[in-house]
Amino acid sequence: MKLSELATFLSDANFDASVSDDPEIKGVAPLDSAQSGDITFLNSDKYLSQLATTQASAVILDLKTACALPCIRTKNPRLAFAQVLNLFYQPIKLPVGIHSTAILGLGVVVGKNVAIAPYVVIGDGVVIGDDVSIFAHTVIYPQVKIGDRTVIHSNSVIREYTEIGQDCLIYSSSVIGGDGFGFELDRGSWYKIPQTGYVKLGDRVEIGNLTAIDRPAMGFTDIGAGTKIDNLVQIGHGVKTGNHCMIVSQVGLAGGAVLGDYVVLAGQVGVGDRAVIENGAIVGAKSGVISHVEAGTKVMGYPSVPEREWKRNTIAQSKLPDLIKTIHKLEKQVAELESKLNKEV
Amino acid sequence: MKLSELATFLSDANFDASVSDDPEIKGVAPLDSAQSGDITFLNSDKYLSQLATTQASAVILDLKTACALPCIRTKNPRLAFAQVLNLFYQPIKLPVGIHSTAILGLGVVVGKNVAIAPYVVIGDGVVIGDDVSIFAHTVIYPQVKIGDRTVIHSNSVIREYTEIGQDCLIYSSSVIGGDGFGFELDRGSWYKIPQTGYVKLGDRVEIGNLTAIDRPAMGFTDIGAGTKIDNLVQIGHGVKTGNHCMIVSQVGLAGGAVLGDYVVLAGQVGVGDRAVIENGAIVGAKSGVISHVEAGTKVMGYPSVPEREWKRNTIAQSKLPDLIKTIHKLEKQVAELESKLNKEV
Amino acid sequence: MKLSELATFLSDANFDASVSDDPEIKGVAPLDSAQSGDITFLNSDKYLSQLATTQASAVILDLKTACALPCIRTKNPRLAFAQVLNLFYQPIKLPVGIHSTAILGLGVVVGKNVAIAPYVVIGDGVVIGDDVSIFAHTVIYPQVKIGDRTVIHSNSVIREYTEIGQDCLIYSSSVIGGDGFGFELDRGSWYKIPQTGYVKLGDRVEIGNLTAIDRPAMGFTDIGAGTKIDNLVQIGHGVKTGNHCMIVSQVGLAGGAVLGDYVVLAGQVGVGDRAVIENGAIVGAKSGVISHVEAGTKVMGYPSVPEREWKRNTIAQSKLPDLIKTIHKLEKQVAELESKLNKEV
Repeated sequence: MKLSELATFLSDANFDASVSDDPEIKGVAPLDSAQSGDITFLNSDKYLSQLATTQASAVILDLKTACALPCIRTKNPRLAFAQVLNLFYQPIKLPVGIHSTAILGLGVVVGKNVAIAPYVVIGDGVVIGDDVSIFAHTVIYPQVKIGDRTVIHSNSVIREYTEIGQDCLIYSSSVIGGDGFGFELDRGSWYKIPQTGYVKLGDRVEIGNLTAIDRPAMGFTDIGAGTKIDNLVQIGHGVKTGNHCMIVSQVGLAGGAVLGDYVVLAGQVGVGDRAVIENGAIVGAKSGVISHVEAGTKVMGYPSVPEREWKRNTIAQSKLPDLIKTIHKLEKQVAELESKLNKEV
Repeated sequence: MKLSELATFLSDANFDASVSDDPEIKGVAPLDSAQSGDITFLNSDKYLSQLATTQASAVILDLKTACALPCIRTKNPRLAFAQVLNLFYQPIKLPVGIHSTAILGLGVVVGKNVAIAPYVVIGDGVVIGDDVSIFAHTVIYPQVKIGDRTVIHSNSVIREYTEIGQDCLIYSSSVIGGDGFGFELDRGSWYKIPQTGYVKLGDRVEIGNLTAIDRPAMGFTDIGAGTKIDNLVQIGHGVKTGNHCMIVSQVGLAGGAVLGDYVVLAGQVGVGDRAVIENGAIVGAKSGVISHVEAGTKVMGYPSVPEREWKRNTIAQSKLPDLIKTIHKLEKQVAELESKLNKEV
Repeated sequence: MKLSELATFLSDANFDASVSDDPEIKGVAPLDSAQSGDITFLNSDKYLSQLATTQASAVILDLKTACALPCIRTKNPRLAFAQVLNLFYQPIKLPVGIHSTAILGLGVVVGKNVAIAPYVVIGDGVVIGDDVSIFAHTVIYPQVKIGDRTVIHSNSVIREYTEIGQDCLIYSSSVIGGDGFGFELDRGSWYKIPQTGYVKLGDRVEIGNLTAIDRPAMGFTDIGAGTKIDNLVQIGHGVKTGNHCMIVSQVGLAGGAVLGDYVVLAGQVGVGDRAVIENGAIVGAKSGVISHVEAGTKVMGYPSVPEREWKRNTIAQSKLPDLIKTIHKLEKQVAELESKLNKEV
């Protein structure tokens, strides 16, 4: 594909006609390992020196940076590069059809062009949309609904009554719809609160590997459309997330936590039960939200505070041991001053 | 079922005869979504306003709160509600019998009324009690013992020699009895310490999804009866927990940690190797216990301190940047005082 | 086996000829539970009193400690003990051969003496070395390479193009080679950056249960030879670890983090994206590394600082509430001094 042609597939990106050359693009690679025929990208001035030496035949870069190579220009080179990668990349695909070792329960409804791999087990009453792919060893409990074009990777478990939207991606060994963790003490023992609810994933939700999303005692756990969840995440019973949230690895949301739209939770964050995080808020890595984060703010620490405050506090804390010395010195000076003054009087 | 009849199934709860009506109860729902025929519950004064407007036919509530609807009264409405939910809820059940695709090793002993789902693999010498259910794709390594009425959900792995008590619930994709993480440096490489022990779960233990419980080099890892463990928890080699502990999601216990009875570890807590947490202690979310927590106390922070102290320290830390200014001002004032006094002298 | 004979199998350990007895060793046990015929070990003076009362027939101990029992002496009794345990321990083994229920894709190459258990699914073009064992229900996606003598336990998922070295141990339910978590906002939605790379594990790498190692957008995630990874760990896309690293349970490494050789990350540590931790550095439990740790240092806290500093800061912080009182007292004293002095003037 010619570079100028490739540019037409990208969102908000243009072939830079100021360089007369329009090379044939055969592959994609980073600046430092690209070869002739490859397209590469420059995302940060940090790598500017590599631009002079790259063997790539073309570059995706921002609107301003000078460049002697043929290039595509865009506000977001990383996005354009991802789109180019997609043009060249063939993700793994299952052959359409139901493998002879798959076991389907009573009343299972399967759409068109569905691929069901070896040893998949599907419970009674499950409804599967068109163009769905289910990789080997996935277990789907009864009465689950799966929307069109959703892909579920190997060894995942989808518990009963889960509703999965269209175009979702569920990676390996995740458990969607397990029992929420709810108990009450009854004469010295923990009495299990039955978890009669279910989990609902909106369209275009992505769930990483080894992630758990629990169902609640009543009602449903609700993951908004377009929300992306990484590996080893815990989503407690009855959590509601807005649309287009970004939940990074090893985050834990306790029962009943509520996220607005476009909330970002960085790695290892904890969110307390019934805590509320408003639209567009960002919680920095390893932070803990106990009750509330305002829309559009970035918070850090545990308990979480605005990022600027956290940084200020962190710097102040590192000065604390020296401050203690200063204070002891002051105490001594003041005592001396008092004694001097008293003597004089 | 009549409301008065329903009350007889609950522990320490009574039909309130002061309201003459005794409605037929057909379902269970929260205050705000309950319909005619439903029973609901009020657990906190926070939702008192919803009591006036609920469409429910009956309410479970505490001993004092005034209520015009037919009601059941109890000290713990949440517990009574859980018990009512249980009366109406049908958890997913496997058909009794061994599925033709299940593979059983040599000398496997299977009790009465056992349900073994498709593609379960069971190693040599495993002993399975009565009324046990094992969901699809579970793998049980050799010489495991499973007590009566225990349920194991899909994709779990039970490693060799594990002993599981009666009435246990093991959710999906957990790994019980994996190798503990022990190594010694030997001429520049990590030499694996063989993990020859096993894991023992007491009766009525519950293990969440995606949780790992490791076996030790020698002896056994011991989970006390009635202890409940959430999702994505790590229990290191040789850990001992008492009875009725509550271990919330993403907690990690390092090797040899010891918990008393009724210990509660909130989400994302870390417990150091050989640390000891005594009976009834509570460790707040995200805290880290390095060595010891006294019985009946609640601790927070890392290293963990009594909760009151943690709160006091947290407030103090937020004041620190301003304190630094105060101290610098004091230094200046004291210097001025000293210079004045010296001049006078 | 005679004690003197057993000593010859250990590295840098010798039979102590000063005790004339050379007993037959039939088993291995800890000091407090050893019986006649057992060998035990003493690793710390803490257990010295048990040495006098142990029923063991022989002891492994250091070069100095006096001992009336027959013994083997070595600088590292723990290592020698691990080696003795290995002589007596028979780890679980699969029978050589491919089980009739295993499904192999097109062009799969299988080495000599390979054991493939029930319901294993292996994709097209996978290459398996000699003496490899793959336990039940493992799913191996296409084009994976597995080196000689590697063992993979039940329910693990190895994604396409992963390269696994020789003598690796992969425990249950881990996911190696899943998609990295990379997105760019495109007109209000998260556009998935295709993850076209792969994961490479060096020789003798050990991966715990329920651990996720992601592949990157381009290039490969690189786990160095001899590196040991515990349970529930997250290794982000494009991470590079050196050789012989030790990564404890629930650690998370964000995308592009780089570890040198012999780096130790204790439990629940978080490492930021592109952070660099140099050779031999140790990161204490629950700490968070944002950017850089120098070779050979030990750091703690979040953001991480040298351990000594962290301890000093932690102690200082606990004094903070009292310091605030001291400062307020000082303010008052200084104000009084000022007022006195002004009056005098």
